[in-house]
Amino acid sequence: MKVADVGEQGLLKILQAFCPPDIIGDDAAVLKTNANQSLVVTTDVLVDNIHFSDITTSATDVGWRAAAANLSDLAAMGASPLGITIGLGLPANLPVNWVENLYRGMTECLQRYNTPIVGGDIVRSPVITIAITAFGEVEPLHTIRRDTAKVGDAIVVTGVHGASRAGLELLLHPQLGDNLNTTDKQALICAHQRPQPRLDVLPILWEILESYSLLPRSSHSPFPISGMDSSDGLADAVVQICRASGVGAILHRQQIPLPNGLQNWLEAGQIIEYALYGGEDFQLVLCLPTEPAYELVRRLDQPAAVVGKIIEGSQVILRDHNQELPDQVLNLSQGFQHFTS
Amino acid sequence: MKVADVGEQGLLKILQAFCPPDIIGDDAAVLKTNANQSLVVTTDVLVDNIHFSDITTSATDVGWRAAAANLSDLAAMGASPLGITIGLGLPANLPVNWVENLYRGMTECLQRYNTPIVGGDIVRSPVITIAITAFGEVEPLHTIRRDTAKVGDAIVVTGVHGASRAGLELLLHPQLGDNLNTTDKQALICAHQRPQPRLDVLPILWEILESYSLLPRSSHSPFPISGMDSSDGLADAVVQICRASGVGAILHRQQIPLPNGLQNWLEAGQIIEYALYGGEDFQLVLCLPTEPAYELVRRLDQPAAVVGKIIEGSQVILRDHNQELPDQVLNLSQGFQHFTS
Repeated sequence: MKVADVGEQGLLKILQAFCPPDIIGDDAAVLKTNANQSLVVTTDVLVDNIHFSDITTSATDVGWRAAAANLSDLAAMGASPLGITIGLGLPANLPVNWVENLYRGMTECLQRYNTPIVGGDIVRSPVITIAITAFGEVEPLHTIRRDTAKVGDAIVVTGVHGASRAGLELLLHPQLGDNLNTTDKQALICAHQRPQPRLDVLPILWEILESYSLLPRSSHSPFPISGMDSSDGLADAVVQICRASGVGAILHRQQIPLPNGLQNWLEAGQIIEYALYGGEDFQLVLCLPTEPAYELVRRLDQPAAVVGKIIEGSQVILRDHNQELPDQVLNLSQGFQHFTS
Repeated sequence: MKVADVGEQGLLKILQAFCPPDIIGDDAAVLKTNANQSLVVTTDVLVDNIHFSDITTSATDVGWRAAAANLSDLAAMGASPLGITIGLGLPANLPVNWVENLYRGMTECLQRYNTPIVGGDIVRSPVITIAITAFGEVEPLHTIRRDTAKVGDAIVVTGVHGASRAGLELLLHPQLGDNLNTTDKQALICAHQRPQPRLDVLPILWEILESYSLLPRSSHSPFPISGMDSSDGLADAVVQICRASGVGAILHRQQIPLPNGLQNWLEAGQIIEYALYGGEDFQLVLCLPTEPAYELVRRLDQPAAVVGKIIEGSQVILRDHNQELPDQVLNLSQGFQHFTS
């Protein structure tokens, strides 16, 4: 049996048998190091021509995106970043300048979040490989997990979805953007090349929960939030949260914030496809009680929105109130599969 | 300018400009997370056919060695392991069994040191790539660094050197072991395939320092130890410590513990070459005051030894008291260079 036969998800399942079940299975691992702090750790591996390409992404942007993706995983756990390490596999004939630009891009992103590069390893490899591990800390009682969504919770997204995917398309086929104005076009490309991890959401979130007296005082109190980031797409995030929490969800198509200008370029079906399955928008998808949910949306400056709610059952249903598109049940199968195909 | 033109060390120097200087430059990065604990983080990247090969190393052994190397870096900082993450780049046609065996080997090693695998990432790649990040914790006042060796310190090695390199040679050319008995042969091969990170040394070390009242009570007291592991060879470890501490060293060839049986097989010059530059013995090389140094050697069950002492100046001299081999000045140039050659 080959790796391609089982796919990434199948292989992960096999390998999870080697890991303690209470630590893994979320955006990042959580290790309680003392009573007041947990260590949160996340790892990503990026390979040339699979996860990035010179055609669409300069070394500086590869660096930015890699750093942003890992910081986003920390944000999704409610954690503040402490630092990252970078393991590099590099071909001998790669220009040194490429590596410097990679580091420049990472540093530009990391500096916004006061996160240092604290070490790494450089080895020879036939293919450029970037392995990033980010670690952060979170108060144990403030850890945001996937498995605590409750029936009745509102589902909040912290910004638009589909922008990164649309930006990639514009980079691959610039002529497709003829109907877009320059501002919209640049915003989409920027969403792809310079995504923003939503660490800025966390202090606002804690403040709102505190004001609603919803922050738990002990580990016996239920945690009012569930969430993850939308790095693998909005559909993936909602389905993963529902699976882990044993609940269903209803999403309202008209409430999902979309990037400006897309309607001048793409059909409605294509737009919602990008929004649900495009991935790499690096927004947070949070489930929490309705009142603080709307308060959070009001407080965020980006086009955040309540896009649906948690219901009983196990299905994630996308409803179109204008009946422009048929209602559909969302699943992971349209998401990004690394090994198959 | 290409990566090959500057080499691994040159590239590291360029990239270190992007990192905070107080955190990097040792076996692992140290981040003070609170008054009583520092987080210690280390990363290694291993690439198929460069760092391991099916000819000499099964997937299980690759896993063991990768885990051991990272735990050894933690031991070299005085840190206790908390966990590791594993980023894998895998070709689609790799047997799933290979990956399971890799994890089996890692787990076998990690379980001895109560260290969980806490997460990772799996991606497609044309070449098997294993990126491991290990993290541990250390009391800030007990952090073992390279730059605190003092003139007069004894230099202790916690076990034999040259065994891993000799074991590799036996795996590549089994006929070379004709003059070795089975026990010695297996010990050498085992040293290569199943190296032991010397985390066991730490509690003994703290106990001895405590009994000599040498453990500092505040950050203003000088730390009595300097050290690193000998993953890149004994010569590399001593030269790196001396460079970082601004001192020299004298090593006595006859005092360096060597594996059994090597004298039946190799010339004296070849044996010392393996011991100094072979690498991957994963012992600790520690500089500390003479009395606790000898006490440490007595307490360790492996053939540990005081092999020399720290002197003024900057040269690391290997002295042969039998004058069988000429005295020599040790440097890094014979060590492993990843990009050049």
